[in-house]
Amino acid sequence: PSPEALRLAQQRQAILTKPAGSLGLLERIGAQLAAIAGSCPPPVPERGVVGVFAGDHGVCAQGVTPWPQEVTVSMLLNMAAGGAAVNVLSRQAGASLVLTDVGVASDYPATDGVRDRNVARGTRDMSVGPAMSRDEALRALTVGIETADEAVAAGADILLTGEMGIGNTTASSALISVFTGVGVATVTGRGTGIDDDVLARKVDVIEAAIALNAPDASDPVQALAAVGGLEQAALAGFILGAARNRVPIILDGVIACAAACLAVALAPEAAGYLIAGHAGAEPGITEALRHLGLDPLVDLGLRLGEGSGAVLALPMVQASARILSEMATFEDAGIDAG
Amino acid sequence: PSPEALRLAQQRQAILTKPAGSLGLLERIGAQLAAIAGSCPPPVPERGVVGVFAGDHGVCAQGVTPWPQEVTVSMLLNMAAGGAAVNVLSRQAGASLVLTDVGVASDYPATDGVRDRNVARGTRDMSVGPAMSRDEALRALTVGIETADEAVAAGADILLTGEMGIGNTTASSALISVFTGVGVATVTGRGTGIDDDVLARKVDVIEAAIALNAPDASDPVQALAAVGGLEQAALAGFILGAARNRVPIILDGVIACAAACLAVALAPEAAGYLIAGHAGAEPGITEALRHLGLDPLVDLGLRLGEGSGAVLALPMVQASARILSEMATFEDAGIDAG
Repeated sequence: PSPEALRLAQQRQAILTKPAGSLGLLERIGAQLAAIAGSCPPPVPERGVVGVFAGDHGVCAQGVTPWPQEVTVSMLLNMAAGGAAVNVLSRQAGASLVLTDVGVASDYPATDGVRDRNVARGTRDMSVGPAMSRDEALRALTVGIETADEAVAAGADILLTGEMGIGNTTASSALISVFTGVGVATVTGRGTGIDDDVLARKVDVIEAAIALNAPDASDPVQALAAVGGLEQAALAGFILGAARNRVPIILDGVIACAAACLAVALAPEAAGYLIAGHAGAEPGITEALRHLGLDPLVDLGLRLGEGSGAVLALPMVQASARILSEMATFEDAGIDAG
Repeated sequence: PSPEALRLAQQRQAILTKPAGSLGLLERIGAQLAAIAGSCPPPVPERGVVGVFAGDHGVCAQGVTPWPQEVTVSMLLNMAAGGAAVNVLSRQAGASLVLTDVGVASDYPATDGVRDRNVARGTRDMSVGPAMSRDEALRALTVGIETADEAVAAGADILLTGEMGIGNTTASSALISVFTGVGVATVTGRGTGIDDDVLARKVDVIEAAIALNAPDASDPVQALAAVGGLEQAALAGFILGAARNRVPIILDGVIACAAACLAVALAPEAAGYLIAGHAGAEPGITEALRHLGLDPLVDLGLRLGEGSGAVLALPMVQASARILSEMATFEDAGIDAG
């Protein structure tokens, strides 16, 4: 990101026909887009691509979620057919979806709209050993990077994170605890809906997996392989791909937040490309966003994932750029700003 | 609003391919739209009209704002020329603006895009007597009702509140205190930017005006005339017009919140048509929304007014309707929801 373009955007915010700072977070995002584009006003990002990565989790054997593992592939196929919430929201926002199987466990027929980049048939159960090998982790990261490269090559000017994977809040809480240093009990929540007993079991399982596999935040790929997931790996790659292609990326939900902590641990300069879509119902989101220094654009009490909160934030990101290019200045409007 | 359509929408939310309740506030807004339309799924509101009402305030003579009164007309003309924040946001959201002078004090040339419905050249100074006569208050209310009627007759299927008026947070805080029963100091904020001394003066001025003019919440038009403003009156009429035409209306900011308290005092059944756009930086917003039982869709730290927060919420309202009509059910997707 360009500090010069950032400064120009901040200067321009001050002369537009509005009280100083009165557009709140939109002013900060607009300046960030200018820094990313290296120009002020920044172009309005109009061609959004939601990268949805699907994977399964061996830790589901420990009863950390009430949903059967087969729901991962059912929802992936529902997305391919256009029937999930993220499809509806993306159609409205004019964004397109790229669906990638990076780690689905179940069998399913080859399906239009689902890219087969399966690295493994789900992770292994982190409560009995590392979730994956270092090689699997690197291959899943590469899937994400390549997905970003292909999207940008095809014209995307903003990326959005999406995911599907029964049990993936468990791996996400583990990664967030590792990279933020905040305790497991603090960053672990109810996912898409579990009771007190299952929540207590989920915390115990994560703590045991961390004790067993010793994830090391200073070796991010080792930590990912120890307690992460294939879709978290791919999303981290997708974020790194956004950064290396110099396009902004909107995060949604606790899985993307875990991936962002991982991406920034691998490449700190990726942080400047991150925009937080939705605030946390999951406590891990709050801790991860604090760690990353991000304020979310949307807070509707969503706890769905899929990318839904990122897509709902897209019009606000677009608005923040449009403000810089289309609003009149006090001078244009003949107002003495004093 | 139809309780039957509301119930159908709630039942439909439960069978869509997502965990129960996971779309948060979008589920409640979708059900509200169904109730308003009297059908489930409700139509997606696509033709939004932002009603911007401009007026001036005699109380500015008491030094409650740093901005000169002439900025009201300068910003109204800036909006007519398309250069204000609300123009930029409306273009992006596909909403149109209707600009109405209901109480501007300054002279200005007749301008394309500005409707002259001027009832008075600003209110009188509420610190020395009633802000307006009962007749003026009723005429300004009627301007708002007619504006809603005309917008809906021309095809609008959702209305949004907008306003411009230097000093209008002062009249809004006064009205919110009267209608919520919450103390003036609690509901009065810094508007678009005042320091501690001016804030203290603003509270004193409002308290003195209430003591002098004795606004009576059980006679809402008297209360409006005592300490209100012409654009608050017109906005209350605009809200009543939305309700009588059975279209939803999105509120933005403290001025619209004051108008909504007034509208609901006049006609309690209007409450079912209200959607809160932006949360409050102004404390009066928080108290008014609590009084009205509304949760805001957007919280970006905006403190601009104009309708900006309502327009930013429009895509979310549209999404809430689209979810009900376009998402697959668990049965469609072949998922056993247990």
